[in-house]
Amino acid sequence: MKVELVAVGDELLIGDVVNTNASRLGRMLTDAGLRVTGVSTVGDGLGELVEVLRIAVDRADAVLITGGLGPTSDDRTREAVARVAGVELRRDPEVEQWLRDRYRDTNRTLTGLGLQQADLPEGGRILPNDRGSAPGLTIEVRGTVVYATPGVPHEMAAMVGDQVLPDLLRRSGAPAPRAQRVLRTVGVGEGVVAQHLEPLEKDLAASGAVEVAYLAEPGETRVKLTSTGPGGGAEVDAAALRAYELLGDCVYAEGTESLVAVVARLLVERGATLAAAESLTGGLLAATVVTVPGVSAAFRGSVTAYATDVKTSVLGVGAALLAAEGAVHPQVAREMAEGVRALLSGTYGVATTGVAGPEPQDGRPVGEVHIAVAGPEGTVTVSPHLPGDRDRIRTLTVVRTLELLRR
Amino acid sequence: MKVELVAVGDELLIGDVVNTNASRLGRMLTDAGLRVTGVSTVGDGLGELVEVLRIAVDRADAVLITGGLGPTSDDRTREAVARVAGVELRRDPEVEQWLRDRYRDTNRTLTGLGLQQADLPEGGRILPNDRGSAPGLTIEVRGTVVYATPGVPHEMAAMVGDQVLPDLLRRSGAPAPRAQRVLRTVGVGEGVVAQHLEPLEKDLAASGAVEVAYLAEPGETRVKLTSTGPGGGAEVDAAALRAYELLGDCVYAEGTESLVAVVARLLVERGATLAAAESLTGGLLAATVVTVPGVSAAFRGSVTAYATDVKTSVLGVGAALLAAEGAVHPQVAREMAEGVRALLSGTYGVATTGVAGPEPQDGRPVGEVHIAVAGPEGTVTVSPHLPGDRDRIRTLTVVRTLELLRR
Ligand SMILES: O=C(O)c1ccc[n+]([C@@H]2O[C@H](COP(=O)([O-])O)[C@@H](O)[C@H]2O)c1
Ligand SMILES: O=C(O)c1ccc[n+]([C@@H]2O[C@H](COP(=O)([O-])O)[C@@H](O)[C@H]2O)c1
Repeated sequence: MKVELVAVGDELLIGDVVNTNASRLGRMLTDAGLRVTGVSTVGDGLGELVEVLRIAVDRADAVLITGGLGPTSDDRTREAVARVAGVELRRDPEVEQWLRDRYRDTNRTLTGLGLQQADLPEGGRILPNDRGSAPGLTIEVRGTVVYATPGVPHEMAAMVGDQVLPDLLRRSGAPAPRAQRVLRTVGVGEGVVAQHLEPLEKDLAASGAVEVAYLAEPGETRVKLTSTGPGGGAEVDAAALRAYELLGDCVYAEGTESLVAVVARLLVERGATLAAAESLTGGLLAATVVTVPGVSAAFRGSVTAYATDVKTSVLGVGAALLAAEGAVHPQVAREMAEGVRALLSGTYGVATTGVAGPEPQDGRPVGEVHIAVAGPEGTVTVSPHLPGDRDRIRTLTVVRTLELLRR
Repeated sequence: MKVELVAVGDELLIGDVVNTNASRLGRMLTDAGLRVTGVSTVGDGLGELVEVLRIAVDRADAVLITGGLGPTSDDRTREAVARVAGVELRRDPEVEQWLRDRYRDTNRTLTGLGLQQADLPEGGRILPNDRGSAPGLTIEVRGTVVYATPGVPHEMAAMVGDQVLPDLLRRSGAPAPRAQRVLRTVGVGEGVVAQHLEPLEKDLAASGAVEVAYLAEPGETRVKLTSTGPGGGAEVDAAALRAYELLGDCVYAEGTESLVAVVARLLVERGATLAAAESLTGGLLAATVVTVPGVSAAFRGSVTAYATDVKTSVLGVGAALLAAEGAVHPQVAREMAEGVRALLSGTYGVATTGVAGPEPQDGRPVGEVHIAVAGPEGTVTVSPHLPGDRDRIRTLTVVRTLELLRR
């Protein structure tokens, strides 16, 4: 079953928005065993949208449109689908009533443009949207099934996961998915991971049963082992076993569990709690920790001591030390970690200090970072020099801190 | 001049790589006054690539291909271009020699597949690559100019900036760039913004001189006014003036200045400082503030009081209040804001508390949020009910807090 994606919106063509919907859908559909054969991005103009849709409908078995369903004058997807299907748009009274209720409940005025969200091409079916006001739709056009979903990423992902994908799998006769395992590593670069796996890659190249792919993210590399045909679970399992041997303990999890989720799980399992003192990361470490649902069982809180005097007044870092060495120093990280551990009564206290840039600070170069973890058995500090810009240095600092906490 | 982009690579279709080349090119070409009318993403298969290229060549005045030029068996762009042009591939001796030298200098072996990088469709011209081994190419096909550049982002960007763009501008007769202004609004939804601008849109639809586009981001909407032809500055200025009148003070900035940058700038201009107490946002507010370079002049720091007792022990929130009302309450936000303002000696103290989900908390529904801003003139609180999942509720809370601080 060939699936084509059509992404609608001037903002995508002029580069104001990166088309992450396409990659997200590519992953969702590929993981489900379907084949994405093309992505077309087109602007808001009706004529061009109709033309692109026509080609996609002729070429593919299924077409998934994202965007152009909202309440403004440049939302023309419904109209374009109706034209390609050669049918009229009709207002759906149920959707209209739902819209009126929804707008009233949220104190907004429903205009004529807003009401167009209740329009449906004849013969189509509404896909309810439980996260926003623009419903999706689906319709068959000359043997090709067409779906239209909103462009807002989280609305799109929910609608595709809950409604479009099950429908597609039913239609395609649910192909046997290819076996896959994903090993998540931290602390070594993509090149080093690939180098460790060279012996495995050589064997796999000979047998041809399993593909290896690398996915690099800041501070992490994921190794994806996928069978080349349907099934192939045993071959993938054998490859994974070998990969574990070759990679050692830089593998921190498998599948979808993130590094911060592993750290949160370990803390909860051990009945331990965490407190954080942040300086160069400025809140990003705490913000990353609280992405994990249920983490309040293990996370006490944090202090961002961005101004130097706050390090002394709130965390008790020695004023003489700060005067002598400045804020960017391993001993400062150590005293911050110990200070926040005492202040917030955590089992562990962690701290970050350093220079995120863009300019050097107090004679310290951009990328100088000090991280400390204080616990019942004492305090450890590490002082990596990290590459990249302000954002990247902060992100890498958070990954390194979590990596220390995992141990 | 209509330009279409064609991105080549299976990794783009299965979502392993996000197509940032397309957005980068979109920006480069738009900024130069050219119009990108479509982007097609296609896999490595020759047949599909030929088909997509044929359509793009028929539709556009210029086609810019990225990817598929390298030294592996799935690099088929040269072959596809030759087929669409109806010509043969010929090996270019100069490029072949350059490749041989380059591979020798970097101690790599040049295989037959590597040598295909020296192949050029008859009638075409090589675009030298000074950052990698795969040269680009350009050729005219039935009146449409086709460029092929490597998929590696920095090689692509250099080749387009140095060679493709100047050639395109020469061909298009260097159009005057279209005039554009972007108004950034906060605090009202895209639908409401569009509704306010309906009278303007009506007039513009009649004159046809300026296009209006909306770009929704969490909590914000950008309004983009672009002249339909080259020049048109006066028309865009007149439209912007009208838009300001219609939108009132939900416009917080123009152009590229973000909401947090405006808040940071206002604080610095007033010689004021900020301290934050976070609960449901868990550090995200502070992390957002510190994205602005130079903000240490105005940002004191923050306390994430994730555990309820930390609200009392560090921020001085009344224990009786917390026992009676729980942590999610406007008065708790107020006392947190006032507490952190005192603790960190800020001109302003802000606080967030609420339920980010996924589950209700102490009988409070997901999305209940309380925000307080304490300053020299007293404390204000707002209690919005915010939609979405855990991440989105937090992001929207940060936007609402910054919106309050802007006032
Ligand atoms: O606002 C607060 O005081 C507060 C402090 C900690 C957690 N919460 C909320 O409580 C819920 C459970 O938190 P968590 O991190 O354990 O999933 C979730 O909805 C959080 O947003 C709220
Ligand atoms: O680690 C610290 O103590 C610390 C506290 C505040 C700021 N910095 C760094 O100082 C530099 C200037 O900060 P900013 O936010 O004013 O651009 C920047 O490199 C920050 O990462 C560092």
